[in-house]
Amino acid sequence: MKLKYSLITACLFSSSAFSSDGPKNIIYMIGDGMGPAFTTAYRYYHDNPDTKEIESTIFDSILVGMAKTYPDDDTVVTDSAASATALSSGIKSYNGAVAVDVEKKPVKTMLEMAKEQGMVTGLVATSQINHATPASFAAHNESRRNYDEIADDYIDNKVNDQLPVDLLLGGGVRYFEREDRNLVEEFQLQGYQYVSDFDALPSLQTLPAIGLFADKAFPFALDENPNRLEVMTNKALSLLQRQDTGFFVMIEGSQIDWCGHANDIACAMAEMDDFAKSIALAKAYVDAHPDTLLVVTADHSTGGLTIGANGKYKWNTDVIKGVRQTAWPLAMSLAKANDMQKTWRESVDWALTEEQIQQLVTAKKSEEPAVALYRQVKAIINQQSYTGWTTKGHTAVDVQVFSYGNGADVFVGSQNNTDIAKKLIGFIQ
Amino acid sequence: MKLKYSLITACLFSSSAFSSDGPKNIIYMIGDGMGPAFTTAYRYYHDNPDTKEIESTIFDSILVGMAKTYPDDDTVVTDSAASATALSSGIKSYNGAVAVDVEKKPVKTMLEMAKEQGMVTGLVATSQINHATPASFAAHNESRRNYDEIADDYIDNKVNDQLPVDLLLGGGVRYFEREDRNLVEEFQLQGYQYVSDFDALPSLQTLPAIGLFADKAFPFALDENPNRLEVMTNKALSLLQRQDTGFFVMIEGSQIDWCGHANDIACAMAEMDDFAKSIALAKAYVDAHPDTLLVVTADHSTGGLTIGANGKYKWNTDVIKGVRQTAWPLAMSLAKANDMQKTWRESVDWALTEEQIQQLVTAKKSEEPAVALYRQVKAIINQQSYTGWTTKGHTAVDVQVFSYGNGADVFVGSQNNTDIAKKLIGFIQ
Repeated sequence: MKLKYSLITACLFSSSAFSSDGPKNIIYMIGDGMGPAFTTAYRYYHDNPDTKEIESTIFDSILVGMAKTYPDDDTVVTDSAASATALSSGIKSYNGAVAVDVEKKPVKTMLEMAKEQGMVTGLVATSQINHATPASFAAHNESRRNYDEIADDYIDNKVNDQLPVDLLLGGGVRYFEREDRNLVEEFQLQGYQYVSDFDALPSLQTLPAIGLFADKAFPFALDENPNRLEVMTNKALSLLQRQDTGFFVMIEGSQIDWCGHANDIACAMAEMDDFAKSIALAKAYVDAHPDTLLVVTADHSTGGLTIGANGKYKWNTDVIKGVRQTAWPLAMSLAKANDMQKTWRESVDWALTEEQIQQLVTAKKSEEPAVALYRQVKAIINQQSYTGWTTKGHTAVDVQVFSYGNGADVFVGSQNNTDIAKKLIGFIQ
Repeated sequence: MKLKYSLITACLFSSSAFSSDGPKNIIYMIGDGMGPAFTTAYRYYHDNPDTKEIESTIFDSILVGMAKTYPDDDTVVTDSAASATALSSGIKSYNGAVAVDVEKKPVKTMLEMAKEQGMVTGLVATSQINHATPASFAAHNESRRNYDEIADDYIDNKVNDQLPVDLLLGGGVRYFEREDRNLVEEFQLQGYQYVSDFDALPSLQTLPAIGLFADKAFPFALDENPNRLEVMTNKALSLLQRQDTGFFVMIEGSQIDWCGHANDIACAMAEMDDFAKSIALAKAYVDAHPDTLLVVTADHSTGGLTIGANGKYKWNTDVIKGVRQTAWPLAMSLAKANDMQKTWRESVDWALTEEQIQQLVTAKKSEEPAVALYRQVKAIINQQSYTGWTTKGHTAVDVQVFSYGNGADVFVGSQNNTDIAKKLIGFIQ
């Protein structure tokens, strides 16, 4: 027996392996709800049908391990706040906790440590920017539901007398321009540029800055702008790279989770696509700036998604690719439609069977036609594509860990979500 | 920023990394149907409730990557034969193919290559030993259903005028002692020791040998011997290690898949436990014989298992640990029972609610009471534990790859199931 395969993998990491310096910049990306079924499904959804080969995805190119997501209670299944707290601070807490421990005491986050070290910091999300995941990096609260208090923390939670975050990009105007307190004005008084028109994002040229582009969250990628996270990622990296100090940025694909909660597979795949394109930008950034570390993971999986269902050995990606709207607006259109098939075909590339039309007609006659149509639209798409779901909530399957660049090697293997944080904190402190 | 975490991971592999020799021995273990939800679920099922810590499993200790399982057609979802063919030969084929390509031509397997190289070879399974997964290492057939022809191949498929497999341990007496051909006698004429009594397994002292311990498959681990794979693994490694030539052995946890098909979570966790203990033995073998490579993976996931279901953020391991029988014999007992609760409590550590008793009573009154009770028993356990399933078939989620020992480093990252085979073949040829 001779050795045909040499240590390719370790060599991938060798530039960092024997260096005494850690990364200057850290890009931390979290796909909310993105369990292994989502990244796998995305590969087949994203495949070019014109080639025999199943093309690899950006995820495949940087997979290094997996992470355990259980919270600090006996539930096994985490929520986004507990998981984000683990991922930001290295400390497990209870479901709902925003960077506080089980005794509700604040825990220091890596973003705060980065700020202490003089690094520039950023948070980017397609949810409101004070939603559980970004919140757990720069705010502290006993409950993720206290949106106003969390937004306040982005001003009040000073680190060395400075505001914690130099760049905030996401949604959430209603929480920042309130009657009781106008945080946008406060940010501006502190020297932040402010934009609220997404088309004006290119006008941001210096830090600190805040961009809030939706009253709460952005619309779903499938319904409006399929590239909004990619555009924000591009802008964020461009603004952050101009700093000599190094930067830490957390970028969240927030709404993969929400499509999972809705059990809406076309919605989920469009969110995955925006997140994947954002990761591709970050990976290219690392190629151009080898002093940078990119780490990507998920906080948990959502919906109990399975690729294949109901006994059939098949997953019909054509069905999913053919759906050009999320289920709720599609159901709303059908609620007003005289001709179900005609309205359906305005948003979907494949025709309903007679049986499916009858299912929609029956749903429309029910007591709550909008809700019944919403359910039936999803049932038709899931059945037609053989997509399975088991819950409107989260599940506890381990999530994947992806890393690339300076320091990427330390994430190989199985680890706790808190270990990801501890390893990153090791690079920051 | 200073480097706190050094290249621990690559160092784990360093004994092989800079060696010019590959492994002398290869232990290849396949958990049939063991997707990421199964290994994760096993961690929580296996956890010691007396400690706050969630203990790591044998899987956690050797995780290095993941693998894509799609077959060579447009279904995305593989069966065990196509996947085993990919894992044994490095060639994707159609569902049902046993070591033949899409044109039904035989493809050379790593076991055959090992035999060509003068290595000793073995197959161990808890299914009949001519079932799809072991079959795809030493037989060639256009269909996994041709059990007799596959068994014949274990004699007829000569490699350099020798029988392909030196050690066969599993079930399947009916396929080897047939009216039209008695393969057991043929094996004995070829110098093989034969045992059919599991308690006589220790009497096997030399190779070649064949042990067939069930008419078809072994009973489920939960119902009878919870350690039968562990015992066979121990014996196989003990017999194989006496060879100077090096060995190749494939050891399958066959029935994880069958419990998945049945959507029976207590059944699945007991199979995982037997497989995990077998892996622990193999890992200890590598520690004692560092010239050995251990690779563990799955062929696909089964059942669409999810940890958590129906909107609840919880997975009740106590419920699952409390079930001491698989669903079919439990249903059979209930079919004959006068007192449902009493009969239930003979096999289950927790009591039925009044509602659950009524569900069983209703099932018993149906036209097919056995089948209805079987379904209802599983529904009660799945609901009570918040275990989700989406199919009686397979799903396409990527599976995990685990490796340990000499050469383990080449399996880090995302790879095709065919790549696992190609890397192993690289060590054999």
